[in-house]
Amino acid sequence: MNLILLLPDDGIDGNGRVQLRGRRLKHVLEVHRAAAGDELRVGMLGGGIGRGRVLLLTPDVLEMEVRFDRTAPPPLPLTLILALPRPKALRRVLRTASSMGVKRIVLLNARRVEKSYWQSPYLETKALTEQLLLGLEQAQDTLLPEILLRPLFKPFVEDELPGLIRNTLPLVAHPNAIAECPRNTGREVTLAIGPEGGFIPYEVEKIAGCGFTPIRLGERILSTETVVPALLARLF
Amino acid sequence: MNLILLLPDDGIDGNGRVQLRGRRLKHVLEVHRAAAGDELRVGMLGGGIGRGRVLLLTPDVLEMEVRFDRTAPPPLPLTLILALPRPKALRRVLRTASSMGVKRIVLLNARRVEKSYWQSPYLETKALTEQLLLGLEQAQDTLLPEILLRPLFKPFVEDELPGLIRNTLPLVAHPNAIAECPRNTGREVTLAIGPEGGFIPYEVEKIAGCGFTPIRLGERILSTETVVPALLARLF
Repeated sequence: MNLILLLPDDGIDGNGRVQLRGRRLKHVLEVHRAAAGDELRVGMLGGGIGRGRVLLLTPDVLEMEVRFDRTAPPPLPLTLILALPRPKALRRVLRTASSMGVKRIVLLNARRVEKSYWQSPYLETKALTEQLLLGLEQAQDTLLPEILLRPLFKPFVEDELPGLIRNTLPLVAHPNAIAECPRNTGREVTLAIGPEGGFIPYEVEKIAGCGFTPIRLGERILSTETVVPALLARLF
Repeated sequence: MNLILLLPDDGIDGNGRVQLRGRRLKHVLEVHRAAAGDELRVGMLGGGIGRGRVLLLTPDVLEMEVRFDRTAPPPLPLTLILALPRPKALRRVLRTASSMGVKRIVLLNARRVEKSYWQSPYLETKALTEQLLLGLEQAQDTLLPEILLRPLFKPFVEDELPGLIRNTLPLVAHPNAIAECPRNTGREVTLAIGPEGGFIPYEVEKIAGCGFTPIRLGERILSTETVVPALLARLF
């Protein structure tokens, strides 16, 4: 937690004072090991970044006086479309994508996505948001990414995808692609990544049919958790 | 497991036949769901890659006839020096680095590495090797990376590091660096990455004193697990 993220219902008063309990209090006690008078980096969800001066820190409450004096880092100009990963990997991928500044993530069904993944409690809004917040706290960002769940492949690709990719560079990661992932694109990108085992040929054709270029990252097969940060670092 | 990695003591006979039990058998039964006659991708640790034809598959044994007809993918020209991450992150970082083709990894002490990390059972040779093998199986590689444990910072930096970086581009990732991580270096690189919280100024100075250039990856603070694949994808 490199930034303590304040939420609208934390109830910051007119003097910039706020009281925190729970996970954030615990972190400040155990990891920051802060004391009254210390300054901690804070951010307002959807807003600015600044400093919180510790007024009171007890096992029950952290009271700070906060002020915000700069904006969050710029978002990555990317929509990430991910075939739904297995739940444990999903959590890590969401944290990673959120920490790297992705602001729109589509979790999509595909043939090689196990049906049971869609029943995971990790897909509940609260669980998704938790991982995204952890990513923001890691990267000192404040802007929560949006997640779209799309459990039906075909209607998503046929009805939504053409609109989604307008004015972007649409790329689909595929181990059999011939083109290497472009570097430092300087453009808004829509990036689709298949499940472990890859999109099936029908799916690749449907996606390519919308205008996506298949690209790869070398000849190695990488896990979703590895390929997401690697591709993002290449693209931007 | 995109490749079944065979080990020297698996005892391949003169006809290229081999019997496997344990983890690899279980994977072929449960994930590949293979049957007699199927061909699976195999590799020989430290050697070639090829195909194994399933002769017999029962809950007790997998028997294959294997042949190797191509070489493993080229290694990444990189020595990765990592301040020892917390044990769970270490396991994932090792898998990632191994899957991306890193062949030499130095695990180094630093001021902000918790002392208890050095007592972790995950640092035993068998546990380290296990993660590296998982990375190779993921990426269809066969060449096991070497790991050096260096629990003393100063003697490592003063006595070993100058020799290690000879003829390489030495870079140290540091959030306060001004230079961005270079792209597509086309060179052999030595990359040092600090602990969560960063190297302390003394450590950065010592490392920079050997000739390392401090570099950063944007303005976000990323976790070790994210920054390793991201930096490697930038550098190569």
